Amino acid sequence: MRVLVIGANACGAKTACRLKRLKPDWEVVLIDRDEEISYGACGIPYFISGDVPEETALRETSFHTVRDKAFFENAKGLVVLTKTLAQEIDRKNKVVKVKKLDTGEEETLSYDKLVIATGASPKVLPIPGKDLEGVYTISGLKAAVEIKQKIARGEVEKPLIIGAGFIGLEMTEAFSDLWGLPVTLLEYFPQVMPRILPLELAKIVENHLRERGVELILNARIKEILGKDGKVCGVKMEDGKVYEADLVLMATGIKPNSELAKKAGLLVSPLTGGIVVNERMQTSDPDIYAGGDCVEVRHLITGKKVLMPMGSLANRQGRVIANNLAGEFDTFPGTVGAFILKCFDLAIGGCGLTPEVAKFEGFSDVGHALNNQSERSHFYPGAEYAFYSLTYEKTTGRVLGFHAVGPFTDGTLARVHAISSILPFKPTVKDLIQLELAYAPPFNSALDPIHDTAHVAENQMEGRYKVLALEEFLKILESGDAEWMFVDVRHPKESEHLVKKYANYISIRYEEFRGRVNELPKNKKIVLLCSTSRRSYEIARFLSSKGFEHVFVLNGGLNYYRKWGLEF
Amino acid sequence: MRVLVIGANACGAKTACRLKRLKPDWEVVLIDRDEEISYGACGIPYFISGDVPEETALRETSFHTVRDKAFFENAKGLVVLTKTLAQEIDRKNKVVKVKKLDTGEEETLSYDKLVIATGASPKVLPIPGKDLEGVYTISGLKAAVEIKQKIARGEVEKPLIIGAGFIGLEMTEAFSDLWGLPVTLLEYFPQVMPRILPLELAKIVENHLRERGVELILNARIKEILGKDGKVCGVKMEDGKVYEADLVLMATGIKPNSELAKKAGLLVSPLTGGIVVNERMQTSDPDIYAGGDCVEVRHLITGKKVLMPMGSLANRQGRVIANNLAGEFDTFPGTVGAFILKCFDLAIGGCGLTPEVAKFEGFSDVGHALNNQSERSHFYPGAEYAFYSLTYEKTTGRVLGFHAVGPFTDGTLARVHAISSILPFKPTVKDLIQLELAYAPPFNSALDPIHDTAHVAENQMEGRYKVLALEEFLKILESGDAEWMFVDVRHPKESEHLVKKYANYISIRYEEFRGRVNELPKNKKIVLLCSTSRRSYEIARFLSSKGFEHVFVLNGGLNYYRKWGLEF
Repeated sequence: MRVLVIGANACGAKTACRLKRLKPDWEVVLIDRDEEISYGACGIPYFISGDVPEETALRETSFHTVRDKAFFENAKGLVVLTKTLAQEIDRKNKVVKVKKLDTGEEETLSYDKLVIATGASPKVLPIPGKDLEGVYTISGLKAAVEIKQKIARGEVEKPLIIGAGFIGLEMTEAFSDLWGLPVTLLEYFPQVMPRILPLELAKIVENHLRERGVELILNARIKEILGKDGKVCGVKMEDGKVYEADLVLMATGIKPNSELAKKAGLLVSPLTGGIVVNERMQTSDPDIYAGGDCVEVRHLITGKKVLMPMGSLANRQGRVIANNLAGEFDTFPGTVGAFILKCFDLAIGGCGLTPEVAKFEGFSDVGHALNNQSERSHFYPGAEYAFYSLTYEKTTGRVLGFHAVGPFTDGTLARVHAISSILPFKPTVKDLIQLELAYAPPFNSALDPIHDTAHVAENQMEGRYKVLALEEFLKILESGDAEWMFVDVRHPKESEHLVKKYANYISIRYEEFRGRVNELPKNKKIVLLCSTSRRSYEIARFLSSKGFEHVFVLNGGLNYYRKWGLEF
Repeated sequence: MRVLVIGANACGAKTACRLKRLKPDWEVVLIDRDEEISYGACGIPYFISGDVPEETALRETSFHTVRDKAFFENAKGLVVLTKTLAQEIDRKNKVVKVKKLDTGEEETLSYDKLVIATGASPKVLPIPGKDLEGVYTISGLKAAVEIKQKIARGEVEKPLIIGAGFIGLEMTEAFSDLWGLPVTLLEYFPQVMPRILPLELAKIVENHLRERGVELILNARIKEILGKDGKVCGVKMEDGKVYEADLVLMATGIKPNSELAKKAGLLVSPLTGGIVVNERMQTSDPDIYAGGDCVEVRHLITGKKVLMPMGSLANRQGRVIANNLAGEFDTFPGTVGAFILKCFDLAIGGCGLTPEVAKFEGFSDVGHALNNQSERSHFYPGAEYAFYSLTYEKTTGRVLGFHAVGPFTDGTLARVHAISSILPFKPTVKDLIQLELAYAPPFNSALDPIHDTAHVAENQMEGRYKVLALEEFLKILESGDAEWMFVDVRHPKESEHLVKKYANYISIRYEEFRGRVNELPKNKKIVLLCSTSRRSYEIARFLSSKGFEHVFVLNGGLNYYRKWGLEF
């Protein structure tokens, strides 16, 4: 049996190696157009930053052997053809026409089974100036090495990044944190990580970026990239404003490398551009499998086919393909889009849908619970606050998404791991409340942040108080509308400046509230305010029993505003 | 409606507060025999160590108000009776007879519904000397304050702890790490954390304790506690050996405070000593609920009733009780025993059963997969190794338990959170392989340690290689049995000392193995050795295709021995 694998990174390399372990007698041929193969592409930002000193480290095994052609041949027993471009698949004759990029020589390789793992390419914005010297995408190790050398030579003083998604944010940190370069970050949408992170959490990231010296421009409308003597010198916006730059990095998404498959007549989705595969990762030709960034996969919350170019999924898919090739039955059912990201001192993670995307995808009656609390027991030294968001369906309680922003620990990973593990099984808010989550003071509180976030959602669903969104409250507060009254229940010292600033803003401390309830007018809309909204919730329940009908609790609490950089 | 809650810590305080939020009009009375209530008992070791400076910090809210009687009355609207001992429940008349401990005055309190949350007490070993001055248990805040003051006054130079379970280990660290005291730790069983942690992981903890200067005695058979002038001065063993000590702490488990319930005729389990409750946390009297350390709960893996005295479960149960009291329907289905623990520089966690306990509980054909790998991408700076254990049923693939020991990060928590979240749903090894787990290099590898641990289990189940247990290999190696041959596939420099030391120990580097296969005899039993057993597994597959029949792979890899303090 002869199996050809096109593409020798995450999915392709995993497929080939796993298959060779399952079927040591089979001939497994791994083809790649590059010389460098099997590199940890997700590590590129850390190579550019200098955290990872040499690019070879990204291609090393954990026992420090470089994963090159010789390694895969000698240690793994594969046949490896590097600098070899797969040009055409002849499905009738079961051969792949390839071209040796060094010599230009062409040949045909026969296969019994074929695997397409051609990955994806960065999208290039179709704007004037895109081809100037100094305009980059992160398309692989070569570009990364080039950028790093340029920085190291001192040729980069003013980098500009287009796109504040995963790559854009990681590269912002790489340039800014470790090389000390002043980064300009342009984002088309009104928030960073659009469609990935709920707005309330995105604003925390935005404030953090600005605090770390990043010039962040949201709603950026780029007209063209400006050049001088063929080299990039800036980016011009539609409104005429110019941002200087001597390096421009486009991090504006990817498109699947599905041309080869398409040319061979395999089904490629016109919507996503990804190769269509079934759950066994078979293309429309049962002898041809495909996986990794070049395929589309099912989103397990929406049921729709999507692109989800993640190294973790590519590796899992590679294993599924190998198992199926070896005669087992294995499936990759789909994804909930779990992600985790380091951004300066923050860990950002999530899975499932944001409230915005859930609404867009047609979920009716989307509920949104925000929570913030200490990552560890609040008495444990060094405990920092983290921020949590739970998106759910109000009618059924079904969990649609979970997102978190916290300090750079594994705490965010812990919560995302727990939720992404059960999310495919369609849990409800009640199921989250019933999760068993280990506890000790150095790690969390007796009720984990997951529990408390789910409690917020449950209390909202049960109608135990009226919820006021963070953005909405700011508008009401600034409007000065006398119909409203704002009651800050924190220690009076914490709210002093607000009581001074706003006419209808008063302070009644939580601990004294029950004794001072008569100070409150029943004919006004009352907003209760505190750091996490826990005290406010408790008082809202008390007020409801005293006949107050229009009592609101801020969704998330004042700590959110503080993390947005507002004075609350 | 008048609800009486006996016991004002984790479960009792949670029940009372939640109920008052759900039913602000109800009268909720909280009774406790102590003056200090609602303290974070799990924080006691961190108070004693000095990490938490004042005991009041353990009783504070996150907004730094002490949770005392006045707080619960003014802020929460409860009626609180401290220093009040519940002596008898008269179920017929629905009253509780209480005694004011200050005055000796007795009175009866009526109830419509009653909640028993009386907690548990530390077990005291029935040995001579147990009543000497300087012999302690951690029974509450008072003992903790006393111990800390004693240390602070310089009266403790040689503490001795009996029992290496959760409390024993945490207190060992408290004494040793932060006060610099030389701790002697005695454990009856042949390992630390017996029945909690698999032996292979326990040995890592044991080595770490010894490296940190703890005198750890396993298989300890204590005869008596020795005293001089009424004060403790040492512990004498059955074999006559004496360990000097000026403070002895018994951390030998707990017993539920179920006497009050028993006296009232409520069902109390003769096996566990815990109060019997249904899933709604109702006792055998439907008007009386019970929760926290005084009840027994269902273990979701064995189906048996067990004691599981955990602050996290007590809080969750308190919420369930409050919901049921308020007229909702809520359940606490049981526990998988999830735990997490800091021990010096280690994070130790797990859920479900260890292999030893699984066999003891009657599971047939218990499989055990060991894995070790870098917690983060191996190229990410500062990445450390962590150690993982997966217990499963070979016939069905059902996951029975998961345990981990890693550096003191939240990485162990992340893995335990993921597994404990799905464990109640009876996942198989295959289900773990299919978990979606977020990935970025600063947090993990493209396949999370959970995946790779499950892969080991799957490869074992599928019979892809013969497994050799870590303990077994050591015996064979030392026996010098010429039937066996040991092949170390790491870099020759790593195995040099072993090749010198053992006659039948040779080195063939992984990268060269396929070309040197002829050097191996087919008539011997071959054990393949490397750091994580990944390379060994790959070569075992290769050898199987070359007609080698007796090839073994070490379960877990040589890194385990290194973490046990052996030279491998």
